[in-house]
Amino acid sequence: MNYLQGQAHALPGHGAQLAAYAARHFLFTVDAGVATLTLNRPERKNPLTFDSYAELRDLFRALATAADVKAVVIAGAGENFCSGGDVHEIIGPLTKLDMPGLLAFTRLTGDVVKAMRACPQPVVAAIDGICAGAGAMLALASDIRFGTERSKTAFLFTRVGLAGCDMGACALLPRVIGQGRASELLYTGRAMSGTEGERWGFFNSLHPPEGLLAAARGLALELARGPTFAHGMTKNMLQQEWNMGMDEAIEAEAQAQAICMATNDFHRAYHAFVAKQKPVFEGD
Amino acid sequence: MNYLQGQAHALPGHGAQLAAYAARHFLFTVDAGVATLTLNRPERKNPLTFDSYAELRDLFRALATAADVKAVVIAGAGENFCSGGDVHEIIGPLTKLDMPGLLAFTRLTGDVVKAMRACPQPVVAAIDGICAGAGAMLALASDIRFGTERSKTAFLFTRVGLAGCDMGACALLPRVIGQGRASELLYTGRAMSGTEGERWGFFNSLHPPEGLLAAARGLALELARGPTFAHGMTKNMLQQEWNMGMDEAIEAEAQAQAICMATNDFHRAYHAFVAKQKPVFEGD
Amino acid sequence: MNYLQGQAHALPGHGAQLAAYAARHFLFTVDAGVATLTLNRPERKNPLTFDSYAELRDLFRALATAADVKAVVIAGAGENFCSGGDVHEIIGPLTKLDMPGLLAFTRLTGDVVKAMRACPQPVVAAIDGICAGAGAMLALASDIRFGTERSKTAFLFTRVGLAGCDMGACALLPRVIGQGRASELLYTGRAMSGTEGERWGFFNSLHPPEGLLAAARGLALELARGPTFAHGMTKNMLQQEWNMGMDEAIEAEAQAQAICMATNDFHRAYHAFVAKQKPVFEGD
Repeated sequence: MNYLQGQAHALPGHGAQLAAYAARHFLFTVDAGVATLTLNRPERKNPLTFDSYAELRDLFRALATAADVKAVVIAGAGENFCSGGDVHEIIGPLTKLDMPGLLAFTRLTGDVVKAMRACPQPVVAAIDGICAGAGAMLALASDIRFGTERSKTAFLFTRVGLAGCDMGACALLPRVIGQGRASELLYTGRAMSGTEGERWGFFNSLHPPEGLLAAARGLALELARGPTFAHGMTKNMLQQEWNMGMDEAIEAEAQAQAICMATNDFHRAYHAFVAKQKPVFEGD
Repeated sequence: MNYLQGQAHALPGHGAQLAAYAARHFLFTVDAGVATLTLNRPERKNPLTFDSYAELRDLFRALATAADVKAVVIAGAGENFCSGGDVHEIIGPLTKLDMPGLLAFTRLTGDVVKAMRACPQPVVAAIDGICAGAGAMLALASDIRFGTERSKTAFLFTRVGLAGCDMGACALLPRVIGQGRASELLYTGRAMSGTEGERWGFFNSLHPPEGLLAAARGLALELARGPTFAHGMTKNMLQQEWNMGMDEAIEAEAQAQAICMATNDFHRAYHAFVAKQKPVFEGD
Repeated sequence: MNYLQGQAHALPGHGAQLAAYAARHFLFTVDAGVATLTLNRPERKNPLTFDSYAELRDLFRALATAADVKAVVIAGAGENFCSGGDVHEIIGPLTKLDMPGLLAFTRLTGDVVKAMRACPQPVVAAIDGICAGAGAMLALASDIRFGTERSKTAFLFTRVGLAGCDMGACALLPRVIGQGRASELLYTGRAMSGTEGERWGFFNSLHPPEGLLAAARGLALELARGPTFAHGMTKNMLQQEWNMGMDEAIEAEAQAQAICMATNDFHRAYHAFVAKQKPVFEGD
């Protein structure tokens, strides 16, 4: 029984196509349901600017209703991921802002993380070389992180006189690597090596630099071929249950999974199993 | 001073004896305060059925007022723990249910986890071989997990077109192995090896298959001989404090521990220490 | 632009000097902004008493408004950290208290942890040898923990007939080492070795016993020379966000970091960077 058959994506405002989106401050391509977003100022280790923050926010918000993107890879051009907010293009101007202006900026950067966590597509980060400051937060806001041994991830806000609480770091990092390790990285700003990151659960796995992007895209493609409506529900619940009690989380999952059991993909999987075939999921 | 001396277990409805309980859908024995629950359809790797879910829920609820069970071991017959919800006995029928029926099912499975977390007895899972789907959730809902190198634990809901949010997985798994590792397992449904599970904190320790059950029962027996009222309070507070603020948690523990200081077991421990003897706890 | 220039520390009640504080129940010294608190009854492995709990509470509360302490090291004299509440000096008297008295005691011990988490100074624990019971909680309530291979950390409340919920253990320990490992330690009271503690994220790093204190003080000195107002905000937000939803945490950090961008230290860092110099932070 399928409750919504034939009505999929019929909601006004849904079903946008992002494949033709012409990104201005980074590279953006869509292939086989996988969007690849590449920070692309390799000569400066791919820093972020006011404009690229805003475009990242808007793009991840647009993904919420996109029909042609089922998973996202985020990477950096050259041999680095992202050096964070540029000192000359970001920090300098910030020293001249009044308080409403400062808050507008910190909210803008936080909105990037909110949008990354709110879109239904799993985000796989491919992290080589430098991954620093706001760049480390883009990595942390991703769902899955692939790294390299030589990668250096630093939440180095303290080095510019700021606090470790930036873009959600004090909430996210303890849940990924534990409260004690997160405290050290946030107070000291020291770089976490690739090996440490894998031991601690920051990186899901390490890869040779030349195979990193292919590995990330391979996983994203596998996810894009899966039950993508259900993946979106998984992502949604990982977010929703962040500070629920256990019993409330279990009830919330009972409802969420009942929704997924009313999808065609659940039926497809069952019928494929009975027919001893591999299911072909369509995301509805 | 003991505030309740002589009134222990006097509350109507408390003090049930479960040793004689004749389980219908799994094996259940009680010995020296330790209940051993064995999923017992080894020819199919111990799948769950509607009936076994319901009996598990009812049994764990009954444990809340049982007098003769102080710790629980959960294990699987043969060389596997549990293959989860059976495709023919569970998934097929689910594809024919309406929405109230689906929600009744997801609530039933969630209620098993709620009951496992709510009973005062620590639950030790002995996990060899396949530990999949709802079986992985039974493992995750346990307090302590012993595994083997060859064990394969997979939250494979995605493989049948469903979301990773099942029976509390999105709440529990991130707290056990970290948000990043949990995300990968829940999105991909891939198996976690025994070695990974030990590195990541899913398994407390690995054991040779032939020694696994004895190790789990040994720990359960040690716990059953301990201050079992206090153990129940530990379990209760691990649950209660799940989403409390830190200061509220500290106050809650001040109250909970003050209660424990009014038990006979606390006095027994002190007097044994003074007498240079090993304390004999009685759970009151 | 600096909104509060010239008014730093002008608030009545702030700016106390603790360097001259004559501690009664432990050693306390202040040097270059780093306070070193040494539990000092080495012949008994540095146990805690009613009096030392109360003095610890009061001292950490006083740190909230202290002007001359920017980071804290907590250590034990001799080759042990702390053996916890003494059996003769604490446990015995507790067995004679009525319920209001018991609750007054558990609240006193909880207040020590609350004060350690509430003061703005990062606390670095240097842990060698025995670290047990309430001593393990002092370690856990610290921000960063340095250990030795031979250290033995045991949340051994269960050994005296009590629950694992003591001074916030059921809230803190799962966030530091994961829910599964925490459950085992709290139910069994068994000692965690130094090597386990480093693998699990309890210890940030292990050191040779003879170099442990110097390592802890070296890190504390580095932190004290950093942007200490921002460090205090990092600590505050790690606490504040403990049970916030992710979006609420991100907004809270936007506000907290905007505050930090209005400090002189942020400006100092920028100007030092432009001048290719190392910034000299002053904590305002």
